[in-house]
Amino acid sequence: MWIDLIGFMAAFLSTAAFVPQAYKISKEKTAKGVSLTMYLVMLTGVLLWETYGLMITSRPVILANLITASLLIYIIYIKVKYKN
Amino acid sequence: MWIDLIGFMAAFLSTAAFVPQAYKISKEKTAKGVSLTMYLVMLTGVLLWETYGLMITSRPVILANLITASLLIYIIYIKVKYKN
Repeated sequence: MWIDLIGFMAAFLSTAAFVPQAYKISKEKTAKGVSLTMYLVMLTGVLLWETYGLMITSRPVILANLITASLLIYIIYIKVKYKN
Repeated sequence: MWIDLIGFMAAFLSTAAFVPQAYKISKEKTAKGVSLTMYLVMLTGVLLWETYGLMITSRPVILANLITASLLIYIIYIKVKYKN
C-alpha cells in the first residue's frame, strides 16, 4: 500500500538518524552529551506514540516507535549504569 | 476524542524533548554536538511523516511533525550560517 510505504520510509529515516548516536554511546560507554531527563521525556513521548499507533492501527507508527523505544531504553541503561 | 488526546500528548512530549536542544543552539549560536548529515536525514524523515500524517489525516502526526520540522530547519540554518 502506497500510504504505508511513505510511512515506512519515514520510520526508516527518523530511526536511522538515531542509530549513529546509539552506536557512539555504545562504543564510548558514555552518554554525557544529552541529559537523562530529556531521554526520559522522549521515552514517555515515544511510548504514548506507540499507544496511539496501536489505537489507530498504523503499522509505520507502531514499528518506528518500537525501534526508537528500544534505542532510548538502551541509551538510558548506559547512562544509568555508567552514571554519566 | 480519546485517541487524539493520546496522540497530542505524545506530540507534546516528543516535541518538548527537542526544545532544550534548539534553545541551547540558539543561545550559543553553535550546533557542534550533532552532525549536519544527521539533521538532514532527520528532516527528510520528518517531512515524510508529515506527508504520511496528511494522507491518513492524523492531526497529532501532522502537528508534531510540523513543529519538529520547524525546529530542525532552524537548527540547520544555525549550523549552516555559523559554519559549525
